[in-house]
Amino acid sequence: MSTIIKNGTIVTADLTYEADVRVEDGVITEIGKNLKGGTELDASGCYVMPGGIDPHTHLEMPFMGTYSTDDFDSGTRAALAGGTTMVVDFALPNQGESLLDALKRWDNKSTRANCDYSFHMAVTWWGEQVFDDMEAVVRERGINTFKHFMAYKGALMVNDDEMYSSFKRLSELGATAMVHAENGDVVAELTAKLLAEGNTGPEAHAYSRPPQVEGEATNRAIMIADMAGVPLYVVHTSCEESHEAIRRAKQAGKRVWGEPLIQHLTLDESEYFNADWDHAARRVMSPPFRNKKHQDSLWAGLQSGSLSVVATDHCAFTTEQKRYGVGDFSKIPNGTGGLEDRMPMLWTHGVATGRLTPNEFVAVTSTNIAKILNCYPKKGAVLVGADADLVVWDPEKEKTISAGNQQSAIDYNVFEGKHVKGLPRFTLTRGHVAVHDGEMRHQPGHGKFVARAPNATV
Amino acid sequence: MSTIIKNGTIVTADLTYEADVRVEDGVITEIGKNLKGGTELDASGCYVMPGGIDPHTHLEMPFMGTYSTDDFDSGTRAALAGGTTMVVDFALPNQGESLLDALKRWDNKSTRANCDYSFHMAVTWWGEQVFDDMEAVVRERGINTFKHFMAYKGALMVNDDEMYSSFKRLSELGATAMVHAENGDVVAELTAKLLAEGNTGPEAHAYSRPPQVEGEATNRAIMIADMAGVPLYVVHTSCEESHEAIRRAKQAGKRVWGEPLIQHLTLDESEYFNADWDHAARRVMSPPFRNKKHQDSLWAGLQSGSLSVVATDHCAFTTEQKRYGVGDFSKIPNGTGGLEDRMPMLWTHGVATGRLTPNEFVAVTSTNIAKILNCYPKKGAVLVGADADLVVWDPEKEKTISAGNQQSAIDYNVFEGKHVKGLPRFTLTRGHVAVHDGEMRHQPGHGKFVARAPNATV
Amino acid sequence: MSTIIKNGTIVTADLTYEADVRVEDGVITEIGKNLKGGTELDASGCYVMPGGIDPHTHLEMPFMGTYSTDDFDSGTRAALAGGTTMVVDFALPNQGESLLDALKRWDNKSTRANCDYSFHMAVTWWGEQVFDDMEAVVRERGINTFKHFMAYKGALMVNDDEMYSSFKRLSELGATAMVHAENGDVVAELTAKLLAEGNTGPEAHAYSRPPQVEGEATNRAIMIADMAGVPLYVVHTSCEESHEAIRRAKQAGKRVWGEPLIQHLTLDESEYFNADWDHAARRVMSPPFRNKKHQDSLWAGLQSGSLSVVATDHCAFTTEQKRYGVGDFSKIPNGTGGLEDRMPMLWTHGVATGRLTPNEFVAVTSTNIAKILNCYPKKGAVLVGADADLVVWDPEKEKTISAGNQQSAIDYNVFEGKHVKGLPRFTLTRGHVAVHDGEMRHQPGHGKFVARAPNATV
Amino acid sequence: MSTIIKNGTIVTADLTYEADVRVEDGVITEIGKNLKGGTELDASGCYVMPGGIDPHTHLEMPFMGTYSTDDFDSGTRAALAGGTTMVVDFALPNQGESLLDALKRWDNKSTRANCDYSFHMAVTWWGEQVFDDMEAVVRERGINTFKHFMAYKGALMVNDDEMYSSFKRLSELGATAMVHAENGDVVAELTAKLLAEGNTGPEAHAYSRPPQVEGEATNRAIMIADMAGVPLYVVHTSCEESHEAIRRAKQAGKRVWGEPLIQHLTLDESEYFNADWDHAARRVMSPPFRNKKHQDSLWAGLQSGSLSVVATDHCAFTTEQKRYGVGDFSKIPNGTGGLEDRMPMLWTHGVATGRLTPNEFVAVTSTNIAKILNCYPKKGAVLVGADADLVVWDPEKEKTISAGNQQSAIDYNVFEGKHVKGLPRFTLTRGHVAVHDGEMRHQPGHGKFVARAPNATV
Ligand SMILES: [Zn+2]
Ligand SMILES: [Zn+2]
Ligand SMILES: [Zn+2]
Ligand SMILES: [Zn+2]
Ligand SMILES: [Zn+2]
Ligand SMILES: [Zn+2]
Ligand SMILES: [Zn+2]
Ligand SMILES: [Zn+2]
Repeated sequence: MSTIIKNGTIVTADLTYEADVRVEDGVITEIGKNLKGGTELDASGCYVMPGGIDPHTHLEMPFMGTYSTDDFDSGTRAALAGGTTMVVDFALPNQGESLLDALKRWDNKSTRANCDYSFHMAVTWWGEQVFDDMEAVVRERGINTFKHFMAYKGALMVNDDEMYSSFKRLSELGATAMVHAENGDVVAELTAKLLAEGNTGPEAHAYSRPPQVEGEATNRAIMIADMAGVPLYVVHTSCEESHEAIRRAKQAGKRVWGEPLIQHLTLDESEYFNADWDHAARRVMSPPFRNKKHQDSLWAGLQSGSLSVVATDHCAFTTEQKRYGVGDFSKIPNGTGGLEDRMPMLWTHGVATGRLTPNEFVAVTSTNIAKILNCYPKKGAVLVGADADLVVWDPEKEKTISAGNQQSAIDYNVFEGKHVKGLPRFTLTRGHVAVHDGEMRHQPGHGKFVARAPNATV
Repeated sequence: MSTIIKNGTIVTADLTYEADVRVEDGVITEIGKNLKGGTELDASGCYVMPGGIDPHTHLEMPFMGTYSTDDFDSGTRAALAGGTTMVVDFALPNQGESLLDALKRWDNKSTRANCDYSFHMAVTWWGEQVFDDMEAVVRERGINTFKHFMAYKGALMVNDDEMYSSFKRLSELGATAMVHAENGDVVAELTAKLLAEGNTGPEAHAYSRPPQVEGEATNRAIMIADMAGVPLYVVHTSCEESHEAIRRAKQAGKRVWGEPLIQHLTLDESEYFNADWDHAARRVMSPPFRNKKHQDSLWAGLQSGSLSVVATDHCAFTTEQKRYGVGDFSKIPNGTGGLEDRMPMLWTHGVATGRLTPNEFVAVTSTNIAKILNCYPKKGAVLVGADADLVVWDPEKEKTISAGNQQSAIDYNVFEGKHVKGLPRFTLTRGHVAVHDGEMRHQPGHGKFVARAPNATV
Repeated sequence: MSTIIKNGTIVTADLTYEADVRVEDGVITEIGKNLKGGTELDASGCYVMPGGIDPHTHLEMPFMGTYSTDDFDSGTRAALAGGTTMVVDFALPNQGESLLDALKRWDNKSTRANCDYSFHMAVTWWGEQVFDDMEAVVRERGINTFKHFMAYKGALMVNDDEMYSSFKRLSELGATAMVHAENGDVVAELTAKLLAEGNTGPEAHAYSRPPQVEGEATNRAIMIADMAGVPLYVVHTSCEESHEAIRRAKQAGKRVWGEPLIQHLTLDESEYFNADWDHAARRVMSPPFRNKKHQDSLWAGLQSGSLSVVATDHCAFTTEQKRYGVGDFSKIPNGTGGLEDRMPMLWTHGVATGRLTPNEFVAVTSTNIAKILNCYPKKGAVLVGADADLVVWDPEKEKTISAGNQQSAIDYNVFEGKHVKGLPRFTLTRGHVAVHDGEMRHQPGHGKFVARAPNATV
Repeated sequence: MSTIIKNGTIVTADLTYEADVRVEDGVITEIGKNLKGGTELDASGCYVMPGGIDPHTHLEMPFMGTYSTDDFDSGTRAALAGGTTMVVDFALPNQGESLLDALKRWDNKSTRANCDYSFHMAVTWWGEQVFDDMEAVVRERGINTFKHFMAYKGALMVNDDEMYSSFKRLSELGATAMVHAENGDVVAELTAKLLAEGNTGPEAHAYSRPPQVEGEATNRAIMIADMAGVPLYVVHTSCEESHEAIRRAKQAGKRVWGEPLIQHLTLDESEYFNADWDHAARRVMSPPFRNKKHQDSLWAGLQSGSLSVVATDHCAFTTEQKRYGVGDFSKIPNGTGGLEDRMPMLWTHGVATGRLTPNEFVAVTSTNIAKILNCYPKKGAVLVGADADLVVWDPEKEKTISAGNQQSAIDYNVFEGKHVKGLPRFTLTRGHVAVHDGEMRHQPGHGKFVARAPNATV
């Protein structure tokens, strides 16, 4: 039986037109005027867009013997509630662990996903086994993106020579390199200095990771990627320094992309100066929020195309978990939520303000990353044959964001009190209507893994 | 009766996939595997791409009592031979002439066009009548792009206050501003100085229009467009100075596009030092060819997206016409050919060298400009419902460019002797197969005017 | 009889050392330890620096049948009170007036100057007479700097072709071009639009001259200077856009200098939003004050050397004169004071904050401009043989700026209420102690014209 | 007894004037017209300038059981012959060696110096002893500049955390950080890859150290210096990438300087493609010679002030020594000569071509570095009281550079065959005339160590 999305305006990354959409067996089977014969969803006054893709989440991420609180169930529920229909999570091997074993752990976590998902493979150590595993990860597991941490010294961080070796291997395999770009050595030194001076509160977290430290690492990763001959995706680009390095690289013809987060686009460093420890600690993430100058830079990057994708780095810890870091900011678990709010916040602050066109909104929330990940047009498109991951977007629907009525399992929301206008009327995940006019009809376990072949040509 | 393009690989600005294409009554009616029932065109080993759009031609352009030699017949024949299925020409009013009267003259010229075409309206003088005519041009004649000459002092040039007034008017009408960006005052002064010093040969043409002069005018046009609130398209961006201004503007979130020509991408200033006057004079155009540094900048712009469209400024004068300028370079008619060679030259020097992907090739030869001109996806797309303006591109087909076997009516070719690999097997204009495996089957008069509404949202 | 400045620390643009200074007959005759035999001035705890040079004043400038209120008497008194010992004023010919006649008028105004002075020649119209006069101005009158207004359309403004012709002439004569850089056409259009919309208050003055308009003109002047082969000095550089153009030019090896004003460094656009019409109108000058982002850019330019000189554009109108513009901001006379406050404000906000070293302070207030003007080391130096234009600077002396106790003849001060620390203990003009520990001992008529030869080599 | 330099034109970093100079007991005691009473040196037609300072030499540097061939005797003889009167060498501790012990070794080497000299201290390992020694090096030994190698992995290289710790220590001590900026990890990987592929010749040396690798390290060092609060001097800046990083830092108000070498300014990468192994190997140094684009960038940097000092990195190995690397480019000892040729080559290619004024020549060969090193105006000045380190420069004197008649002890010269115009007539080292109109009158052991206090204020 088919579902028909009626009377909406289809908005893709490069087209705006009026048409109905027929969905059967999880895929789009027809696009045209006056479609008939099926359950109808009324999209009058709405935009029918590719569902959002959030390429940067950490669901049920291990941390000091516990886990980040949103798992693949609550996390993907939050995603769907906000119009996002696919998430990409990072599989993090322990030191010495096989990449494939790490993936098995992530396979197990993701069985209750409510929407489709994929994994990035993290390279958290280097050795012959990792080198060998990488081929299987790409060819057998359908993962073509590998994340490297330039920070978190003594834990996840890899050095320049390891990074170069890994990037060379990716080049051979046709995969794409990703980096968390902060100079881990300098962050460690600044952290030690701040703690030694008695700066133990959450605001010192921001002092320990200034923009220059991120800009430097971005610039370094770009050079190493260029030497190794691999495309580079820079996660959570938060500042002008990092953006400048990306811009300069693109202008030299290099294949480099930057990913600002919705948090960095709309929140700023003043949050850390809140007198309430909890308030500040809940906003602790890396890189930290920046000042207005950096926000302006990120928006201009989205407008001009020098930045490509808006993500969340969703990694939700409860206030209780955050309090592990009372008395020592370096122990505050890093991460904030955002999955449910990314699209309404970006529409409100991006489209409604005239900074972005609706087509550009689709590009930066879905289509660009689908191409980079090499799952376009299965995802990120409104085309016959594409997966019916769709959001019917009502530009007039509004609400005030509040932890009280969110899908996320944590007890607060960093966007608490923000008013948004522009919300999903319906969200479809492979044809299933998971959000129906304010009502959640998600199905745990409905979500499937999305395999992605190497040699993307974007 | 339908035509089926069989066994090709469809390449659009954002997709590459294998499918057949059915064409009926000039439009694409079906895309899918194993289509049957119609005349078949064998696209094995070929890419099926949107036909090229050349947004910058001067066919049968009036000049000193005569005309540029390629008219809408020979010009569009050359276009089709090279895979281009739409041209946009500039309607140039005389001083004091109504815009609508000028358009009538261009309507008359274009009756024998072999492919579809549109017009840009030039604003060559300013006054109340022009202000009033603009509305009719946009709303009744379907023209949303208006060209302004910042050079050719005493002839086509408009001053800053006129340009601002015109841009304001365009802003009200939802149209787009275009500029030929060179500082006409300085060009005039340098020209006079060179002639006074006895520098009368074609090489002095290049000396009279250095890159700084173009960069300055581009920067000025961008500021005026920003003040007036209108998008800006900079034609024939030939140098780093101009490109830098465009880049800087885009990075500030401004809607500005740059158009390098295939000539500037592949030929350089050394052509003007050829001892043969004819050789040098045939290459005289404005802006002149530049050095390698500028070529590198233009290619990097196409790669990074800071430049958007590759065009030709096709304006073909015979050697005899060029000789009007013997003894005075400023009298050499400005212009070169290129319509037949743009796509093979760009493929050979852009795609075959790894600078551009095939998708990016489609973007810069067709899709980007279709969006800017607001005729996408009627043009520039391979979609059901789109015009069947298609080129079946054989990446293995090769030839050496020569005036001896070109469609253009002139007696030379600025690319003479260049070897190209990558040529059309078939070119379809609204479904009609105008190029059939090396044979021209064009139909004079087949081409129709393409009306374009205002308020493009690219 | 000689004067000895005892026990101070000499600070020049490139040296800091302890020594006494002997002054005889208006020049420095000895520098060394323990000098004896003359009237002593106690410089204990003070810096002995070259007196300031303000290269941008408009004293007794004609305006609508009246004159700017500070003349060469009160203006140079204000200068001396603030540690400035030389001013350079602009001689402005009327339309059609000979340059030499204009200079005669300025000679007459300057007879009561209390410190040395020189003139820049303005080129306010173009013709054979101007061309011819320029030689005499350079060779006979000792003036090697010529100002061009790119704004004030219909009054002082010159067009691009006139500017190019003038610059060429300067190149032949070894003189330096100066520009007031704003696009006069666009300013005129924006002004008309604002007035038509009923925006008549002083805040609209700022709206009518946005930073882009200044940046554009700066960029244009640089190109024209480059084509003509003449060094360029850009007066009152107020914004990042203009600074960027200068920076880019310098980086290409061009001889271009930028001059931020002390007002733009320390005051911002919020002044125009003051509800008191008088408050806002008193701050009306061109370019207008900018926002903090632009201030940051100007300070960084002074630090890095991409900007060279701090001036005032001192042009003081009384509140009564400002009120000519009630009901029409375009009639408010443009200009503010600053001569007395430039050095204390720059020391307070530049040196005391750590942005500039004391040596850099000397460079940007005196030595750099002395070199550019080609009167170094007669001026701008502490060297044997140099003019004894000296300021003994007490870094501990402080005051609150107030119109109530200023030398300027107007009834307000744009820095009213600002606290400064760092003030002259003594100011010497060619050996005469004009400021003596808080007491004015100036001598009207003491100031002499400083002739400056062409072909500066800075 | 005094020496008088008669009838010359004094040229300093900021002045040009005619005067005689009296020298007594090694210092300048009088500057004025018509000096009398002493041995006269005829400077007619000559410029009297501060002697050159070469801040980057490696004399008698230990290398694989032997030493670089020019020692403090032959090296400083070469210096004087070319107008350079002070060299600064790098004292290199072995792994685990005390800084003070290393300095003793350098003290011993330098006893036969013919001109004054100083040392930079290299930080080649990190530990408590180094931390402690640094204070004595600064306060007792008069050394305020500390070099860090970001390349030469496994030998001299320090990591980011070591560099940060060292920089912090320098900040406390008021000293200046220096870096050899190349990413050592990447150089090591590229070297291994090239050798593995059979690329063993000298040209592969250049392939192993591309400009990006230098640019990255420069950018990183700047960030670390900024975090640590220390001024940074980047030795041998050879490319646009590195220059861009420096430029960007200066524009942000950071205290960073770049040092191009005369080799990189005048020789290019084509040298490595010479079919003669010896020819190519003799030019092997790090960073390697670059292409013309990079040369243009370096010259523009000197012109605009974004680069500050021209040095040599003089480290002279004989052809026999170079041949250690036959069959493995990574074993070719790195280094070339240049001490004798720096000033004539820079004059010929910089001043005679119009790129630099004579004053700028003095600035970049002597005065700027004297200020950075904090030995100005003892060195780098023509002032009463300054050391009589002077060169009487004859702009008409010419020669062709040849190993046959050089002072350097090696058997070739990388500038062999270059014609220079502009050479010393006399070179004085602390008053002693070491070069007398073509005759060497140097005195081994005459040279003294120049102590330099911390807290330079440039
Ligand atoms: Zn991260
Ligand atoms: Zn993350
Ligand atoms: Zn044109
Ligand atoms: Zn044209
Ligand atoms: Zn002005
Ligand atoms: Zn002024
Ligand atoms: Zn080195
Ligand atoms: Zn070295």
